[in-house]
Amino acid sequence: MTTSDTTHRFDAAIALAPLDEGTYTGSTHPDYGNMVGPFGGIIGAALLNAIMQHPQRLGDPLSLTVHFAAPIADGGFTVEAKAIRTNRSTQHWYVTLVQDDQVAAFATAVTAVRRDTWHGLDAVFPDVPPAAAIAPMPAIARAAWTASYEMRFVSGLPGAPDSASDSSESRLWLRDQPARPLDFLSLAALCDAFFPRIFVRRPKWVAIGTVALTTYFHADAAQLAAQGSAPVLGRARALNFRQGFFDQTAEVWSETGDLLASTHQVVYFKE
Amino acid sequence: MTTSDTTHRFDAAIALAPLDEGTYTGSTHPDYGNMVGPFGGIIGAALLNAIMQHPQRLGDPLSLTVHFAAPIADGGFTVEAKAIRTNRSTQHWYVTLVQDDQVAAFATAVTAVRRDTWHGLDAVFPDVPPAAAIAPMPAIARAAWTASYEMRFVSGLPGAPDSASDSSESRLWLRDQPARPLDFLSLAALCDAFFPRIFVRRPKWVAIGTVALTTYFHADAAQLAAQGSAPVLGRARALNFRQGFFDQTAEVWSETGDLLASTHQVVYFKE
Repeated sequence: MTTSDTTHRFDAAIALAPLDEGTYTGSTHPDYGNMVGPFGGIIGAALLNAIMQHPQRLGDPLSLTVHFAAPIADGGFTVEAKAIRTNRSTQHWYVTLVQDDQVAAFATAVTAVRRDTWHGLDAVFPDVPPAAAIAPMPAIARAAWTASYEMRFVSGLPGAPDSASDSSESRLWLRDQPARPLDFLSLAALCDAFFPRIFVRRPKWVAIGTVALTTYFHADAAQLAAQGSAPVLGRARALNFRQGFFDQTAEVWSETGDLLASTHQVVYFKE
Repeated sequence: MTTSDTTHRFDAAIALAPLDEGTYTGSTHPDYGNMVGPFGGIIGAALLNAIMQHPQRLGDPLSLTVHFAAPIADGGFTVEAKAIRTNRSTQHWYVTLVQDDQVAAFATAVTAVRRDTWHGLDAVFPDVPPAAAIAPMPAIARAAWTASYEMRFVSGLPGAPDSASDSSESRLWLRDQPARPLDFLSLAALCDAFFPRIFVRRPKWVAIGTVALTTYFHADAAQLAAQGSAPVLGRARALNFRQGFFDQTAEVWSETGDLLASTHQVVYFKE
């Protein structure tokens, strides 16, 4: 783990120092703090980073499921990545994050070697104005991580006094702040940057926490490289809020209409 | 594991015999065979069953992610379920299925104690005719598991000669065959009973296999009990097919308009 003044804050936040093959130490980072503990997206990216750095890795990320098993305290942690099964073109992973001798978060993932096949895109790129036409949202002081993303809301700004709505959908342009070329790690984090849908649906702040998050990577490394640091278009919505939990789902698109990722999570809410 | 002539085929197929706390033996079942090896849904249900039978379990299933890590051979296997972290109202699990000393499938899950809160349903029950108005699809001989479900297609029947379409969506009524009261285990299996979307989108059979599957349970035990053995309405679709993989997502509804589950998977395809 070597970081310098020129290291992007995202790379500093997900940096892992090797202890042994597949085992690393890391630490939370103030620029990705949330109201309590770290932003979940940065933890998911750190867990994926343990796979990306693993000498046995086959291929690039295809899916990532992160369990936020307990509150994570600000400070250090240990990450261990294990390849559970390696096939000819896919590999299945289990990764744990340990603090105080207890698993606080864990992830499963698939990495895969991609190859050209028939292709078809069923999802439809949303009808939105270009990013440059929309002013960025100011950061939220009590959630430091929001200053690490540039968010330009087309619709569905959370927490607005008039936000009570039959729809939990948001459409927004977003990218890392400062700008940083997109890769699998930053895309993984960004997939958790859609505010809890309950804050779009109801004009009331309640305690919430993501319980588990699954992301499917549709883009390959070449598509991500072509993306550079251009903004991506996110479309997020929920299906159902009930008995202390809700789901939410999002699509992440390039400006040029490539579907880069789709993501799903289940979230706890207090009342 | 005690089964008799009156045991439903589903309960026989997911039956586990305890070896030690959290460790069980099970076996594939011919009524849930697929073209090669077992139907993935029945494997996911067997993995969840190891959690359901665990003496330390807290609450009911909230989420389940199943990794199909390698081909599963017809025959016996060992399942081990571990509670990774237990909180006041949620519990996070890791479950492995071992054959020939190798992990062939594994799962993570969250169980949770539910309580009444504000609720809101954003998803819309599809506009469909009642189940009784539609004839069941004949079973597919080379996929034995299809005879263990009654499927009444409103739209999106896979594999039809004229199925080439811009839409990968299917709407269908389905239930266990013979009829069986719905519970978390059968709902988990049923969430994998939507045919691969590529067979709806393209009139061509290719080799496919689910890589990983995540299900969110929206229903509580009381809603499932109220469901009895009535058919459920499923709506399945894909977002994107590319470079040997596609995603698919489905909602599962009661006849009375309750969202029972939502489910997502990433699937390998050969060409």
